Amino acid sequence: MRAVIIVGDGMADRPLRELGYKTPLEAANPKSMDRLASAGSSGLLDPIAPGVVPGSDVANLSILGYDAGSVYTGRGPLEAVGADIELQEADVAFRCDFATVKNDLIVADKRAGRIYEGLDELEEDLQGLDFSSRYRIEFIFKRTSGFRGVLVLRGQDLSPNISAHGPKTGFRVDLIDAADDSIEAKITCNALKEFVTLSHEFLERHPVNRKRKSEGKPPANIVIPWGPGKRPNLQPLCERYELKAACVAGVSLIKGICKLSGMTVIDIPGATGDIDTDAAAKGEAALTMLQDHDLVFIHVEGPDEASHDGNAGGKIAIIQKIDSMVGLLMERIDPEETYIALLADHTTSTRLRRHTGDPVPLLIAGPDVIRDGVASYSEKVAAGGNLGRIRGRDL
Amino acid sequence: MRAVIIVGDGMADRPLRELGYKTPLEAANPKSMDRLASAGSSGLLDPIAPGVVPGSDVANLSILGYDAGSVYTGRGPLEAVGADIELQEADVAFRCDFATVKNDLIVADKRAGRIYEGLDELEEDLQGLDFSSRYRIEFIFKRTSGFRGVLVLRGQDLSPNISAHGPKTGFRVDLIDAADDSIEAKITCNALKEFVTLSHEFLERHPVNRKRKSEGKPPANIVIPWGPGKRPNLQPLCERYELKAACVAGVSLIKGICKLSGMTVIDIPGATGDIDTDAAAKGEAALTMLQDHDLVFIHVEGPDEASHDGNAGGKIAIIQKIDSMVGLLMERIDPEETYIALLADHTTSTRLRRHTGDPVPLLIAGPDVIRDGVASYSEKVAAGGNLGRIRGRDL
Repeated sequence: MRAVIIVGDGMADRPLRELGYKTPLEAANPKSMDRLASAGSSGLLDPIAPGVVPGSDVANLSILGYDAGSVYTGRGPLEAVGADIELQEADVAFRCDFATVKNDLIVADKRAGRIYEGLDELEEDLQGLDFSSRYRIEFIFKRTSGFRGVLVLRGQDLSPNISAHGPKTGFRVDLIDAADDSIEAKITCNALKEFVTLSHEFLERHPVNRKRKSEGKPPANIVIPWGPGKRPNLQPLCERYELKAACVAGVSLIKGICKLSGMTVIDIPGATGDIDTDAAAKGEAALTMLQDHDLVFIHVEGPDEASHDGNAGGKIAIIQKIDSMVGLLMERIDPEETYIALLADHTTSTRLRRHTGDPVPLLIAGPDVIRDGVASYSEKVAAGGNLGRIRGRDL
Repeated sequence: MRAVIIVGDGMADRPLRELGYKTPLEAANPKSMDRLASAGSSGLLDPIAPGVVPGSDVANLSILGYDAGSVYTGRGPLEAVGADIELQEADVAFRCDFATVKNDLIVADKRAGRIYEGLDELEEDLQGLDFSSRYRIEFIFKRTSGFRGVLVLRGQDLSPNISAHGPKTGFRVDLIDAADDSIEAKITCNALKEFVTLSHEFLERHPVNRKRKSEGKPPANIVIPWGPGKRPNLQPLCERYELKAACVAGVSLIKGICKLSGMTVIDIPGATGDIDTDAAAKGEAALTMLQDHDLVFIHVEGPDEASHDGNAGGKIAIIQKIDSMVGLLMERIDPEETYIALLADHTTSTRLRRHTGDPVPLLIAGPDVIRDGVASYSEKVAAGGNLGRIRGRDL
């Protein structure tokens, strides 16, 4: 018996006025998902607990069976591992975002206009900067997908106990601060501040950004590190559940979680971590991995990105892409041999442009699963299904 | 965004033969509650966990998000704080009931005929008694609503580890006893016994009770302390959830819980803690508080009182009053700005005249909430709603 878990990041939503009070899932009219629902059991899933608003990090850890409250050390190390950085025990890792700030450090665009072009050049030139002259600290910066990146501080006497928050459009860049009185936190904080200041000065006058400005695009003129943490210890899935698992994902956060849990993690060309992702390529990759793995975990980031942008149409479009991928899998997978679970890792409200604490629809189909009469996949109807209401860790 | 939580104490029930196997909620035919259900999502809520029979103390603590198992220290301190007594760290507080006992200390009426008149006089005269002559303990007695009161023992070397139970009609007054071998428990126990004995001797011949007897009413001839405890530590709601909350309640238990959780607590004239309460006044008070608070917690005690009396008609009547209050709130609250949650804190069986472990119906309406098709508010139909089955702490 094998299994596929398909997670649409932030795919669940609330009824939207502009969709005639349908949710994007309902409006997408996803035929394959509905067919899968008819073949199995549905229910609601609270990623952590009812009403708790999760980030994708703790939500996906929970879905893979971990007690997020005890294993989670921060967003940074998960992203860094996902970006193929071998984290050492003393390292402190940060998730980073390329953003656009005005002179007063007010964030004009927290994703620098969802920048794609010129990023390799920016990455390479940032890596060449000499941040470490004043510190015995190595600065490892790496861009990941789109506007995202990671920063690892390597040295002795570093502390993850740093207050460093992600950028918010319209707000001033948060002041980085030590979160305790230790000398380690102070050292780490000062090093981090210098990285941000120097990168801002450097990026502001970088040719890539001069070009963007001349084209009327927001320049990627700052790198903002957030979510500090040291490498977490996750008991591998092969030990926990005695299964060999693989991950099909575009974003480094999920790749990192899956690597740390001992899964096979592959790079899929065309998996962008956005709504333009190649979902069909992910489906094909999953089918390949399924040949010699017990569990394949497919994660699609796009719905969350569209929601954060308040883009209902984009969310519907990426849900329809995921639906096609579900159709492809259903066509090629033997339902007598393989379970398929479909869910979101959390709800992201397109109206509020943020995660909320609502439960997400879950459906499971496969060998011997009760057909509970629920004939479509949505927030509303899943509540009437046979699975009742469970938690992420229960999956 | 703002929110109102409306709790009908013990409002949930079981089907009653005398109501044609309808529950009081169903028999009350509460039009406004039904309309609110149509506008939102319904479900079941287990105050603590499925099958656990809660007191109103732990149930309401849970509904406010506390882990009752870890914060609860006893009923007494919650009631004492609700009665505006500033509890000191060494104090041991008790809830008290005025009751009627026969000469053999069998309880003839555990609420002294739900006495209302003459209570101020009884309170004042009890306060004048010299209980402390033999102890270096201060006795602070205060009546609260109706037959209820609180007793605080103030002094060093007191213990809350006392076995002291509330009165039960038809049973002998429970013997107060030390629950461990400590000298503190023995001292507290002896002091408490003397309070009960002296108050009984004194009340038996008090003019208020002579008058009651001559009128054929049960005399309030004993004060029974129960539910001992020291002041609990509750993390304020403003810290836990970053919100400013207010409480609209009649009984001191709920006022105490809400004061200890940092809420604004007001006194509402006409809020009696019984079925004759002025629910409309509570609705108006809630609307006023909503102007400068994020959350208003409305608690109505009446349904529980009617249930304990086996009074189905009275329970229906107070539910209809609450329904009118819900109607008033719906009329005056903007549903695009404010959530309304309606629930009971536990089930009280009118037939058994006691709390039971059944889940209670919960409904939530407001901005972006899914309309799940449940069109009335009752124990039976709520189970089919979109909220599934959650716990008090999840609310």
